[in-house]
Amino acid sequence: MKVGFIGLGAMGGAMVANLLKGVQSLTVYNRTPEKAKPLVARGAILANTPAEAARGDIVISMLADDPAVEAVVFADEGLLGALPPGAIHISMSTISLALAERLATAHRQASQHFVSAPVFGRPEAAAAAKLFIVAAGEAEAVSACQPLFDLLGQRTFFIAAEAPKANLVKLSGNFLIASVIECLGEAFALTSKAGIDRGTYLEILTNTLFGAPVYKTYGELIAKERYTPAGFKVGLGYKDIHLALDAAETLAAPMPIASLIRDRFLSLIASGAEDLDWSALATLAERDAGRNSRIATTAGTWTPR
Amino acid sequence: MKVGFIGLGAMGGAMVANLLKGVQSLTVYNRTPEKAKPLVARGAILANTPAEAARGDIVISMLADDPAVEAVVFADEGLLGALPPGAIHISMSTISLALAERLATAHRQASQHFVSAPVFGRPEAAAAAKLFIVAAGEAEAVSACQPLFDLLGQRTFFIAAEAPKANLVKLSGNFLIASVIECLGEAFALTSKAGIDRGTYLEILTNTLFGAPVYKTYGELIAKERYTPAGFKVGLGYKDIHLALDAAETLAAPMPIASLIRDRFLSLIASGAEDLDWSALATLAERDAGRNSRIATTAGTWTPR
Amino acid sequence: MKVGFIGLGAMGGAMVANLLKGVQSLTVYNRTPEKAKPLVARGAILANTPAEAARGDIVISMLADDPAVEAVVFADEGLLGALPPGAIHISMSTISLALAERLATAHRQASQHFVSAPVFGRPEAAAAAKLFIVAAGEAEAVSACQPLFDLLGQRTFFIAAEAPKANLVKLSGNFLIASVIECLGEAFALTSKAGIDRGTYLEILTNTLFGAPVYKTYGELIAKERYTPAGFKVGLGYKDIHLALDAAETLAAPMPIASLIRDRFLSLIASGAEDLDWSALATLAERDAGRNSRIATTAGTWTPR
Amino acid sequence: MKVGFIGLGAMGGAMVANLLKGVQSLTVYNRTPEKAKPLVARGAILANTPAEAARGDIVISMLADDPAVEAVVFADEGLLGALPPGAIHISMSTISLALAERLATAHRQASQHFVSAPVFGRPEAAAAAKLFIVAAGEAEAVSACQPLFDLLGQRTFFIAAEAPKANLVKLSGNFLIASVIECLGEAFALTSKAGIDRGTYLEILTNTLFGAPVYKTYGELIAKERYTPAGFKVGLGYKDIHLALDAAETLAAPMPIASLIRDRFLSLIASGAEDLDWSALATLAERDAGRNSRIATTAGTWTPR
Repeated sequence: MKVGFIGLGAMGGAMVANLLKGVQSLTVYNRTPEKAKPLVARGAILANTPAEAARGDIVISMLADDPAVEAVVFADEGLLGALPPGAIHISMSTISLALAERLATAHRQASQHFVSAPVFGRPEAAAAAKLFIVAAGEAEAVSACQPLFDLLGQRTFFIAAEAPKANLVKLSGNFLIASVIECLGEAFALTSKAGIDRGTYLEILTNTLFGAPVYKTYGELIAKERYTPAGFKVGLGYKDIHLALDAAETLAAPMPIASLIRDRFLSLIASGAEDLDWSALATLAERDAGRNSRIATTAGTWTPR
Repeated sequence: MKVGFIGLGAMGGAMVANLLKGVQSLTVYNRTPEKAKPLVARGAILANTPAEAARGDIVISMLADDPAVEAVVFADEGLLGALPPGAIHISMSTISLALAERLATAHRQASQHFVSAPVFGRPEAAAAAKLFIVAAGEAEAVSACQPLFDLLGQRTFFIAAEAPKANLVKLSGNFLIASVIECLGEAFALTSKAGIDRGTYLEILTNTLFGAPVYKTYGELIAKERYTPAGFKVGLGYKDIHLALDAAETLAAPMPIASLIRDRFLSLIASGAEDLDWSALATLAERDAGRNSRIATTAGTWTPR
Repeated sequence: MKVGFIGLGAMGGAMVANLLKGVQSLTVYNRTPEKAKPLVARGAILANTPAEAARGDIVISMLADDPAVEAVVFADEGLLGALPPGAIHISMSTISLALAERLATAHRQASQHFVSAPVFGRPEAAAAAKLFIVAAGEAEAVSACQPLFDLLGQRTFFIAAEAPKANLVKLSGNFLIASVIECLGEAFALTSKAGIDRGTYLEILTNTLFGAPVYKTYGELIAKERYTPAGFKVGLGYKDIHLALDAAETLAAPMPIASLIRDRFLSLIASGAEDLDWSALATLAERDAGRNSRIATTAGTWTPR
Repeated sequence: MKVGFIGLGAMGGAMVANLLKGVQSLTVYNRTPEKAKPLVARGAILANTPAEAARGDIVISMLADDPAVEAVVFADEGLLGALPPGAIHISMSTISLALAERLATAHRQASQHFVSAPVFGRPEAAAAAKLFIVAAGEAEAVSACQPLFDLLGQRTFFIAAEAPKANLVKLSGNFLIASVIECLGEAFALTSKAGIDRGTYLEILTNTLFGAPVYKTYGELIAKERYTPAGFKVGLGYKDIHLALDAAETLAAPMPIASLIRDRFLSLIASGAEDLDWSALATLAERDAGRNSRIATTAGTWTPR
């Protein structure tokens, strides 16, 4: 099987390293080709255009946002024009429902297959092949992708034939993660101001009802106020909440907590915190309680305001 | 060791049943004595007043709210007047920080000990001796209570010498649970309106990042819209969010999500849903999305509005 | 002076009637030409395309939303291609800042002038020539429009040379109106539930600190629960709040009350109330308080839920 | 007619000065008697206890909060014990519904009359005898108070026989004022960040739909960021929103905007701004937009955070 992979960021790079363990012919493309070097050293073939990476049986895209995916797919020398009939495009990026729908239609019209397969997991999980994959598309096409999913993740969930539904599950999941961060922020602001030790408090939470990875991972970042380096940036968190709210709007399903979180992210962006880890959302509840965190960043010290 | 127990509701009754397995002399008191009958049949001694239950080494109170605890402790024939010097009062109820402080002071002045030890867990967990216990008080007094805690729960966390801190941890924990319910409500409203199967959605959540008891327990109630019989009523959830906000006010630590949840509970109460399980909070996001749940209750059908 | 007017809805129709009092040659266009009939009877000339209405000195557009304006301006046989060099396009619609910017650029490139001049006032105010006009654009072009503004409104405010600033003032003003509706809704829900007469309550408000038109107009609709016929529909209110939030996002200026109102409008839309007057926003606070309004509409009875 | 007056703060002092113009015998009491001096110089009689001020036909209390009123009324040497049968206590303070109810009952049992008559207006309005008075109580008692009300205010509104209803109207009115401040704060944050002049923006608002005193007064303070000296302090604003929410809770009428404002006030208090004018609420929207106001106060510079 010949596979292509487009997008070698923190997530994509780690995923390609795992694919190389099982895929014979793996062609990779990245806008800035330097990122491909270590992967080429391990056997990947370098493509100069998205089209060159899309001439096999399956091409995977893992990019930052809608515009990046649109650029790679619809451009001249793009993925859509090069992918052979019957071949599959797996979109693993976190994108809008509208774009997922548009991709599904475009690939169908080009006699190609489209599988929407966004993932849950930060770069560490990608590196450990521990991603969770939520897949939607024609059942046969999804089945054909399963061997690749098995190289990338610990479990795949098939959700529906309609591609955008996988993206909705992903976006709603990111909303739930952000809500955990915000709520932990409020809980820590309250208990820390009362003098309760942050580590002890987190230990109680994660050893009782809140023993899920989401509480352990983000609880530790918040307890230690370790918002840099970013595993997932404020700017990306804002983007995803925005996409969730776009979907909520289209479906006419109001989400007041999501709206509140959107405003909180916007406030972080207004104060220059766009590149901190999105768990920095938690600093705002502490700021509102009069606690003045000073976060060390590569660019100096940042204080929520 | 002679132990007394005051309050034989769904929680207290189950706890007494477990204490009987390890305590030789256990005296129980309930305002309506009928509830004591099955426990007396299993070896408990019936007290006619709180005072009668408080004449041993340790007396435990497990009651619905602040007024119930105040009535039992400070009344004529109350616990405070009867407890011998050096004996311990363990308050396991979910009460305000202000009352915990008042109890600590009153017992100290009476040369008694006070341990604040609220619990996490619904009646099923109490019955299975699987409660989590958060304890605060003088270290020595807490140690003396440990054998009883071991009969009641799966783990005890010692938090601080100051009694109210245990209550703050408990209230902040209940806030976090309520926030999970609200956020799951919003996520289900969104995904259900898009046609995603509720069971499949929950399975994805709980098998990925959200594998904690709080998501499993409440996710299942919400996915199946099973809001009756109540494990923990809307009215009690409202009370606890209120106490958390009271603490937040005293500490000057604003909690916007808690405020939103408070208003949601108030809306449930205004529409007559006070006796549903507090997971019915999730119905409001679905109502706002135009989904018209019809909840079967013992009193007929209830529809969120 | 030859003037064109595009868009003969409730607002545009009333405005044309006033322009006819002072403009010699007035050409009008509407997508559905029947609406032009009474105006033609009073002296207006009927155009078959936007282009035909744009061949004079000034053309005014007054349309429902961004897509309607885009269709009229950028289409073949559209306004942009037909407007002579040096002529002026006055956009009085409530549109996005992005579209205002795009229009300013397009007209500049075509050697035409663009004046952004959105208005405050409902159809009654338009009919009475009592609109308030907020104008932005090159000072000279705005001056040239003043005689027309004087026929349409009671006062014109010049805000800046940059066209989008007029739109921002308009959108922020509509946000403030919506916030008055929401807050009055909460205040009426509270006081009505306590048994205070709605008319008396409104009289107190409007005769003390709240004696502005916005409180009188909307206070009366809310006090009498008269949400139909709509002077300004829920759907349009939603659109405007959305545009305000889009601007807030671009500027990174979080507006939590606007977010809350957006969610409320979305809830109205989800329950089928899109065509009620936007003051129906106030029904949600009353619904949340358990008051079950039943609103008579042309389509039957509507109950907030 | 012999009148007593208790409470000589910024409001009470100005009110007594006006009463002296029409009342023959006016006895005044203040906890710190120095404040009475200028009034005594103008003819007032100094009382050493609340009781001494309460031995005439009518006694007025104008105090900061519930505890202050309780102290004056129910203490030994308090108002309740001294007021003759048939005499009237007019409570003009902004107090809780619960205390108004308690006062009504206590006075009835003592064969005295109680009139609840809170006012709208800042100290300037009190000095100019331009207060608005909202009165509730037995119609006959209210009528007997009318000559005094005419000396103090520009208009009296009779609302109901039940005393607490006047307090509910007052509290809901203060909620509406606070909501205007918050919403103006968001609107100014948005438009100022876009470079629109604050004075021009306010002029447009107050000359169009928002021409009420509440917009003029608070709009000017916000436009000029003049938050000190305080006409009405953040701490008092917080108290009143809290009382409004207490009433909302008792009535089961959720008020989400009031909840948001409560949290905003709490954030101001946490950052040390308790003594600024309550219009400083508007600084938080500007802070969230990344605008760093620096407010000059008597204690130095304060920056919202």
